[in-house]
Amino acid sequence: MSNRRRILGLDPGLRKTGWGIIDVEGTRLTHVANGTVQSEPDADLSVRLRQLYDGLVQVIQDWEPVAAAVEETFVNKNPVSTLKLGQARGVVMLVPALHGLPVAEYAPNHIKKAVVGAGHAAKDQIHAMVRVLLPGVKITGADAADALAVAICHAHHGGRLEDVARRIGVKL
Amino acid sequence: MSNRRRILGLDPGLRKTGWGIIDVEGTRLTHVANGTVQSEPDADLSVRLRQLYDGLVQVIQDWEPVAAAVEETFVNKNPVSTLKLGQARGVVMLVPALHGLPVAEYAPNHIKKAVVGAGHAAKDQIHAMVRVLLPGVKITGADAADALAVAICHAHHGGRLEDVARRIGVKL
Repeated sequence: MSNRRRILGLDPGLRKTGWGIIDVEGTRLTHVANGTVQSEPDADLSVRLRQLYDGLVQVIQDWEPVAAAVEETFVNKNPVSTLKLGQARGVVMLVPALHGLPVAEYAPNHIKKAVVGAGHAAKDQIHAMVRVLLPGVKITGADAADALAVAICHAHHGGRLEDVARRIGVKL
Repeated sequence: MSNRRRILGLDPGLRKTGWGIIDVEGTRLTHVANGTVQSEPDADLSVRLRQLYDGLVQVIQDWEPVAAAVEETFVNKNPVSTLKLGQARGVVMLVPALHGLPVAEYAPNHIKKAVVGAGHAAKDQIHAMVRVLLPGVKITGADAADALAVAICHAHHGGRLEDVARRIGVKL
């Protein structure tokens, strides 16, 4: 029996939400797919949220991940931006939950540390390390690269322990 | 053929989302139902968002509204609160959109003006006017009362014009 686990990483945004799928088997990581779900800037907010929803449902149906991980949102100084991002993030976290996936959250510094080894790495360094850690990956965009970084962080963080804890009702 | 339209008003919140349903026939408003959908404060965020989603799907299935209206969110000075509210609001706006309902948004002052006649009315005045405008209503809570106020605002605002505009692809 294979111990392979398929993880969905998500980088939420109202205009663009990045997603990345990796397989984890022991300490071995394999890239599966990555991309971006977009909403039309001119559409009504509820329509845009539905566009994100539809796109993410498609990703989950296509790739059948068993766990999801989302970057904890950097709280913007501009409250209007924070609200906008929050609305997208609500939908992005809802969709995997509706499909029965546990959804973990990681702080940006935690993700940087897991991927690059330092909590204050630049975006470029993170993307370069994603390429090193997932040989042969073809990154489709910056949001998708960030999403892959979240998925890698979840793999390193021992998502398995988290799942067990959840199953037996213990909060870590 | 009846011109009755059933409107769902929504007052989003992560812990409690108020909802209120009214029927509109010409200038006549009738209260149908109101209540609150809640999420468990101790649960994971994705689980809480799913609880809001499940509750709102139930409301729409039970009462079959044809249009929804949501209060535009007051942007809090505390960015953490703004983010939390945004996440709940994303789900609250998504659910009616997934059921094919147009979702209108109204600024708080606009709602106060529509219900009380003044843009700076106190909460108490709004709730008192909701009782006057919807004779016999039994309000189940403050969030539900706010949700009824949004529904009343949408009825006054001529939601019908909005629907027509949407159907023929014109942005008002």
